Amino acid sequence: MSDDSKDERPDFGSADSLITIDIDAVIANWRALDHQNGKATETAAVVKADGYGLGALRLGPDLAAAGCRTFFVMSLAEAVALRAALDGSGHDAAAIFTLSGCHAGQEADFRAHRITPVINSLEQLRRLMATGDDWQVAIHVDTGMTRLGLDRVELAALQEMMTGQRGGLGGVTPCLLMSHLTAAEDPKDPASARQLADFRNLVGLFPDAPASLGNSAGTLLGPDYAFSMTRPGIALYGLHPAGMDAEGAQQDEAARLRPAITWQARILQRRTARQGDAVGYNGTHVCQRDSRIVTLGVGYADGYPRSLGNRARVVVGGRQAPVVGRVSMDSITVDVTDLDADLVDDAGHATVLGAGYSLAQMAADAGTIGYEILTQLGQRPARRFKGGQKRETGA
Amino acid sequence: MSDDSKDERPDFGSADSLITIDIDAVIANWRALDHQNGKATETAAVVKADGYGLGALRLGPDLAAAGCRTFFVMSLAEAVALRAALDGSGHDAAAIFTLSGCHAGQEADFRAHRITPVINSLEQLRRLMATGDDWQVAIHVDTGMTRLGLDRVELAALQEMMTGQRGGLGGVTPCLLMSHLTAAEDPKDPASARQLADFRNLVGLFPDAPASLGNSAGTLLGPDYAFSMTRPGIALYGLHPAGMDAEGAQQDEAARLRPAITWQARILQRRTARQGDAVGYNGTHVCQRDSRIVTLGVGYADGYPRSLGNRARVVVGGRQAPVVGRVSMDSITVDVTDLDADLVDDAGHATVLGAGYSLAQMAADAGTIGYEILTQLGQRPARRFKGGQKRETGA
Repeated sequence: MSDDSKDERPDFGSADSLITIDIDAVIANWRALDHQNGKATETAAVVKADGYGLGALRLGPDLAAAGCRTFFVMSLAEAVALRAALDGSGHDAAAIFTLSGCHAGQEADFRAHRITPVINSLEQLRRLMATGDDWQVAIHVDTGMTRLGLDRVELAALQEMMTGQRGGLGGVTPCLLMSHLTAAEDPKDPASARQLADFRNLVGLFPDAPASLGNSAGTLLGPDYAFSMTRPGIALYGLHPAGMDAEGAQQDEAARLRPAITWQARILQRRTARQGDAVGYNGTHVCQRDSRIVTLGVGYADGYPRSLGNRARVVVGGRQAPVVGRVSMDSITVDVTDLDADLVDDAGHATVLGAGYSLAQMAADAGTIGYEILTQLGQRPARRFKGGQKRETGA
Repeated sequence: MSDDSKDERPDFGSADSLITIDIDAVIANWRALDHQNGKATETAAVVKADGYGLGALRLGPDLAAAGCRTFFVMSLAEAVALRAALDGSGHDAAAIFTLSGCHAGQEADFRAHRITPVINSLEQLRRLMATGDDWQVAIHVDTGMTRLGLDRVELAALQEMMTGQRGGLGGVTPCLLMSHLTAAEDPKDPASARQLADFRNLVGLFPDAPASLGNSAGTLLGPDYAFSMTRPGIALYGLHPAGMDAEGAQQDEAARLRPAITWQARILQRRTARQGDAVGYNGTHVCQRDSRIVTLGVGYADGYPRSLGNRARVVVGGRQAPVVGRVSMDSITVDVTDLDADLVDDAGHATVLGAGYSLAQMAADAGTIGYEILTQLGQRPARRFKGGQKRETGA
């Protein structure tokens, strides 16, 4: 957890903001979900999009050390990078699946780096069969997303191939059957039960292969959705999939997840403004009184959503203060008139995400979901990793 | 410019989307603005936020080769990286200013890397004076942003320091006087004229230092706003600051800027859907007819704004098609029912940003500004640079 006491100033170095990633929190979240799953269900880890922005290559080896045996990424490029990180840390037995599938021309790289493709279409399946090689693959069947996975026409054709006289799937062996939930974070959405029923009808398709339906939200829905493997993503990173919409039991689930990220920004400047002064581009905030404004070194180019202008809050010395005016590319302006001036001076920085202003709250204020906030974090902020096996800090 | 003919498929390699950056377009835009400025006004280049997401370290040396002598970045970290790129390409005489200022503890790095701080407050000025060293600095005076720069109280104190008996500013020599326009992209906003009048009253402050007021929009406002130096940013990257709000003469200005970026995405899957099928998370799109849907390998983790769900268009084989359903983390779904199936099959990819769907249009559809789109482009897409001095391709 971040220390927001005024005694400790973050070391921003040559950057103007700092993102601290708590590896131990991610591991604890994985363990908690794994515990909930029970022994009959494997808990994989979805680390696509660079571990939802937190750093797949740092988190992967520590998750493997904690017992995670299966990882999901999106693209071959992500898989190759993760494979190197896992091999380099002694976890070469871990399985890596690419949700994007194996595209024409990528076959040799998949074999060289021991990557398992998720087959989303018969075209992909037939291409691998045509290689004449042996392939372990996941088969992804769509149960209501209309995005990736075999549609009902292709599913029927697959079933025909498997029962036909042509030798089934040749050298291709399904090692996982999977589908994906469209709205599992919303207990009132009937789609989940419908998808569950459809998926139950599919699991007999490959009797020897494990089956996986649940993402984070599906994992939290409990044993009905567990099957042989769950594939949590966002929950590993400390966010409940329902965000600020969490209700009832979801609020307890959310409280058990450990936040994994803290983002602090340098106070670039403390300044005064008079009543009537406009703040920021296009003067969208006009001071209603003589004010004290601090300018922080974080803006939309750092991944701080522009939609948070005049909406978000930050935390200075343990006290909340509102963002006023537009979010600039490289900075935001905060009204600290209600905060003690010495408190602001002593702090020297503000927490823009973390204790006192949660990811779920930021996402709600920005009109989006926490997933987008995390994966849009920019490259400019300095990064520090806390905990994990290596125990070192610094990016 | 991108070639969207169906004859040429982009090489996505192990990635699922590809961003192509046209260095020659950036150079041409800088030259056009420099020509407009005339010989009495220097044209700097604002390459903060990694050159607005396009790659400061690739663009910087080519801009210097084209004649640009002054660069602006935000932080020390950005400045150090740019200095190395400029030195390494034989442009060690170029000046680099950091808009964030010089923060306590950074003084030695500023000197070692020959970085010029933009002084935003008297605290920063006094700290440099206290070093006893000689410093060249820019003095940033606020004329209406209430963000960075000396406020009116600090300006009065500065004037007193300079006329006092204590020896003025010691070893600190202002080499640039600057301010920043708040709404120059909107010709109807009276703020620009007010800021211009204020700035004219300031230029006598340092008779020997050049003065700079205009950003891209200010540069386009013409000679009144030019002073000794303009500091264009977004226009270098091919976007008019007014975006889709450009009116009258602004539309001609916009047409003269060369777009510098093309973003293409792999078609991960072509699939069918029946009337009534829901598409994407939470089923926000329901097919009103039997449909053909393609899933593209670009999502919000790549910087494709989530707010574009059910709003944006992409270009497949020269034809526009609508994004349907929510933007996922790693993919989007596009309705290509109205497009010839062979055209889609042959294309194999779609242009999500570029010819046929401009940055200004994307920003308008996303409810933001093109600046945010560019600076939020993710690290996962493959990148290719076209043109420039090196003339090679590939990231």
